[in-house]
Amino acid sequence: MQRRRPRGWAHPDLGDVDLGRVLDALGDPVRLEVVRQLAAAGGVVRGAFDVPVTGQTLSHHLRTLTTAGLVRVSQAGRFRCCELRAREVEQRFPGLLPAILANAGGGAVRMMPP
Amino acid sequence: MQRRRPRGWAHPDLGDVDLGRVLDALGDPVRLEVVRQLAAAGGVVRGAFDVPVTGQTLSHHLRTLTTAGLVRVSQAGRFRCCELRAREVEQRFPGLLPAILANAGGGAVRMMPP
Repeated sequence: MQRRRPRGWAHPDLGDVDLGRVLDALGDPVRLEVVRQLAAAGGVVRGAFDVPVTGQTLSHHLRTLTTAGLVRVSQAGRFRCCELRAREVEQRFPGLLPAILANAGGGAVRMMPP
Repeated sequence: MQRRRPRGWAHPDLGDVDLGRVLDALGDPVRLEVVRQLAAAGGVVRGAFDVPVTGQTLSHHLRTLTTAGLVRVSQAGRFRCCELRAREVEQRFPGLLPAILANAGGGAVRMMPP
């Protein structure tokens, strides 16, 4: 099935993204957990993330991560595919994502009340 | 002159600070620049930072950095002394601050309109 970019989701060139925007995007526990799960899954997640938020809230977070250049979102029929732009982020901010992920313990966000 | 902690400024134990709070604190260009200048100055700045904000706004940013465990603020007479808690942050989040600082180019924040 052909993958397409969902309407209205822009994927910026990493050269246009500054460090503050990336840190701000990751400074939210749900967004940090989404990126952690993406990395743990080898960079690509098709379908759902295991986070205690509604689909609408998750969409909002994914949009923030996309705007910050961290995630690429595409749609394949009913399924949403999320891809961590790890290689591009590494080129733009060497060592940053590995250092953050190394300190992002797994699953803490799931301890939040539903 | 004796240094004292300004009233109402709490310095949390790094063990009580989570990664999201640190990233969120650094996800602001002025706060990132304050931390960059602190690091460039060897960890301690007495007096002023070179940032294009009012003293009151700077105080607000310093408080956010302090709450996130990144900075320790003390007062010596009329002078405020700011110290980067680099060693403690390194113990809590190994490699994080060096990776962020390595990607925080100097002075970009000064290009903002006054």
